[in-house]
Amino acid sequence: MSRHARARGNSASTEHFFEMLAFYRDRVRERICELVPRQRYRRILYGPMLEYPLRDGKGFRPALCLAACQACGGRIEEALDTAAALELFHNAFLIHDDIEDASESRRGEPTLHAKYGVAIATNVGDGLNMLALRTMLGNTRTLGLERALTLIFEVERMARESTEGQAIELDWVRHNRGDLSVTDYLRMIRKKTCWYTCMAPLRCGALIAGVRPRELAPFTVFGFKIGAGFQIQDDILNLTAEEALYGKEIGGDIAEGKRTLMVLHLLRQAARDDRERVLALYATERAAKTEDDVTFVLDRMRRYGSIDYAAGIARRMALSAQRVFDERLAWLPPSPYRRFLQEMILYMIERPL
Amino acid sequence: MSRHARARGNSASTEHFFEMLAFYRDRVRERICELVPRQRYRRILYGPMLEYPLRDGKGFRPALCLAACQACGGRIEEALDTAAALELFHNAFLIHDDIEDASESRRGEPTLHAKYGVAIATNVGDGLNMLALRTMLGNTRTLGLERALTLIFEVERMARESTEGQAIELDWVRHNRGDLSVTDYLRMIRKKTCWYTCMAPLRCGALIAGVRPRELAPFTVFGFKIGAGFQIQDDILNLTAEEALYGKEIGGDIAEGKRTLMVLHLLRQAARDDRERVLALYATERAAKTEDDVTFVLDRMRRYGSIDYAAGIARRMALSAQRVFDERLAWLPPSPYRRFLQEMILYMIERPL
Repeated sequence: MSRHARARGNSASTEHFFEMLAFYRDRVRERICELVPRQRYRRILYGPMLEYPLRDGKGFRPALCLAACQACGGRIEEALDTAAALELFHNAFLIHDDIEDASESRRGEPTLHAKYGVAIATNVGDGLNMLALRTMLGNTRTLGLERALTLIFEVERMARESTEGQAIELDWVRHNRGDLSVTDYLRMIRKKTCWYTCMAPLRCGALIAGVRPRELAPFTVFGFKIGAGFQIQDDILNLTAEEALYGKEIGGDIAEGKRTLMVLHLLRQAARDDRERVLALYATERAAKTEDDVTFVLDRMRRYGSIDYAAGIARRMALSAQRVFDERLAWLPPSPYRRFLQEMILYMIERPL
Repeated sequence: MSRHARARGNSASTEHFFEMLAFYRDRVRERICELVPRQRYRRILYGPMLEYPLRDGKGFRPALCLAACQACGGRIEEALDTAAALELFHNAFLIHDDIEDASESRRGEPTLHAKYGVAIATNVGDGLNMLALRTMLGNTRTLGLERALTLIFEVERMARESTEGQAIELDWVRHNRGDLSVTDYLRMIRKKTCWYTCMAPLRCGALIAGVRPRELAPFTVFGFKIGAGFQIQDDILNLTAEEALYGKEIGGDIAEGKRTLMVLHLLRQAARDDRERVLALYATERAAKTEDDVTFVLDRMRRYGSIDYAAGIARRMALSAQRVFDERLAWLPPSPYRRFLQEMILYMIERPL
C-alpha cells in the first residue's frame, strides 16, 4: 500500500480527493520528464535533476495550480507547464534546503548531497531553477506574450516573498528570539511558506484561465489560510510523526531552533525555570544539542499543551479558509475541480504525513 | 593606491581602458544600489545582498554589456539594468560558489557564509538571483515586451550553459579524469565561464542596441575567445599571484582537483612516476591534501613548463580574438566603446589579478 493510499480516509469525498491528487501528480511528473533534456549531460546533470521530482512527493503545489485553472474554466493543458515549473522550483529549493540543514534523507531516500557531494547537488539545484524559468518562458509560445509575462512576474513575486520569509526566520534563530506573537509567526510563514506553496500556484492557475489580476484577491487570501494550516501541521508532524512515514528527522525543527507556534506558546506559558532552560537550549548550535535536549523540549511542549494549542490554530485557519471559499469564491461553478480545492482545506491540516 | 590603479600599465591606451572600466563599474554599482529595496528587511536581507557587489571587484562583465551596446550605437541608459542584472547573477554565483568551496575570503574580506553562516548566505545568494530576474523583467517597461523577453531568453541560455559546464567540471573531478585534451578543456570552459562572463554580456549589449539575433555570431565567437583567455589567466593566477592581491587561496584549484590546462599538460608530459603521483594526489579529497602536496604539483608544473604552455594557449586565444574583431566586427564604427572592447582582449590575459 502506498503512503498516499494509507493516508486516505474512508469517505467518498476523501476518495475523490486522493484520486485527483494522484491524477494531477502523474500528469505533472510525465510533463517534467518531457521537459528535461534527454540526449546530452544525462548522467552528470539531467539524470540527477530528475531524482527528487520522481520520488514519492505529495505534489499538491502543482495540483493547486491545475485545479484552480480548471475550476475557473481553463484547460489542464494550458496550465501543465506552469504547474511543472512550480514543482521544479520546489524541488530546487528542497535540494538547497537539505544542504543548508545537512539533512540525510528526503522522501525516504538519501539526500542529493549525501549521494553526490555538496558541489554537484548545489549545481543540480541551480539546474532545476534554470529549467523552471525556461519552462515559464515556453509559455510565450502557448499562452501568448502578455499572459506568459504576467506569470513570470508571479514567479518573481513568489521568489521574493520566500526569500524575505526565509530571511526573517533565519534572523529569529540567529538572535534566539523568544518574544514573538502568533501574528509575527503568521506574517513570517505567509512569506516563507504560503506564497510559494499555495498562493502563487492558485493565482497562476486562475491567471491562466483568464481571471484578471485585480480579481485574484480571494485566491490570495484562500491560499494564505490553507498554506498556514499546512505549515502548522508540518511543524506538528515534525514533532509527532513516525520517522519512516514522515521521511525527515523527528524533532529536527527543535534542533534547528525554528520558532514554531509550539515553542512560542511554550515560552509564553512555561514556568520561569522551564522557560529559561528552553531558551538556553535554543541558543546553542544545532550540533551542540543532544537527544536529551530535544526530548526535554518535546516533553515540556506536551505538558504545557503547546501542540494542542498549535493544532487549534491550524483548525481556525481551516475554518477561516472555508469561510473565504464560501463567501468570496462562491462564483466558481460547481465542478470536480472546485470540490478538489475545497477538500484541500481539510487535507492540509489532517494529513498524517 | 587601489588594486586597479596598480594594475594599470603606462601606455595611453591602457589609461583609457581603465578609466572606462572604472566609469562603467561606478555607474553599475550606483544602479545596483537603487535596485535593492531600502525600506524593509534591510538588516536581514537587502544589506547583506549588497556586500559582495560593493566590494572592490573588477566589474568587466557589466562593462562588456555596456560597451557592446554603445559600440553598436545604443545608449548606456538602455543597457544599465541588464548590466546590473548580469553583475547580480555573478555575485549570487560567487556566494554559492564560496559555500561549495568552503572559501574563507572573497575580494579581500571574509566570505558571506563566514560572516553569517551557510543558511543565511545561501538565502542571500537566492535573493540576488531573484533581484536579477526582477531587474530583467523591469526591461519590459523601458525596452518593450519583445526585446525584454529576448534578453530574458539570453539569460536563461547563459544559466543553462553555466550549469552544464559546472556539471562537466565537477564530473571530471569526481572521476579523477586524467585523459582530457585541450579541446575538452576549451569546450568545458566555453560553457562554464565564457557564456556568462563574456558571451552573454556582449550579446545582451548588442541586442539592446538593436542588433538582430541572427547577427550576433561575431559577438558570440569574440566572447568565447576573450572568455577563454580570461579563464586560462585566472587558472594561472591561482598558482602564481600574491595571495593579498588575488583575494583567493593560492593553489586552491590544485587542492580542489580542478582540471586546468596546466595539470592536463603535466599529466601528458610528466615521467611515469611523477604522473602517477600527481594523479594519486588529485584523487584525494580536498581536506586530505597537504601543503606539501600542493607544493609538489606546483613544482612539477614549473619543471615541465606547464604554466608557460598554458600562457601560450591564452596568447593564442587573444590573437584569435583580435582576428575575429578585425574581420567580423569591422563594421563597428570607430568609437571609444569599440576601442574599449578591443583593449579587453589584452586585459583578459595580462591582468595581474
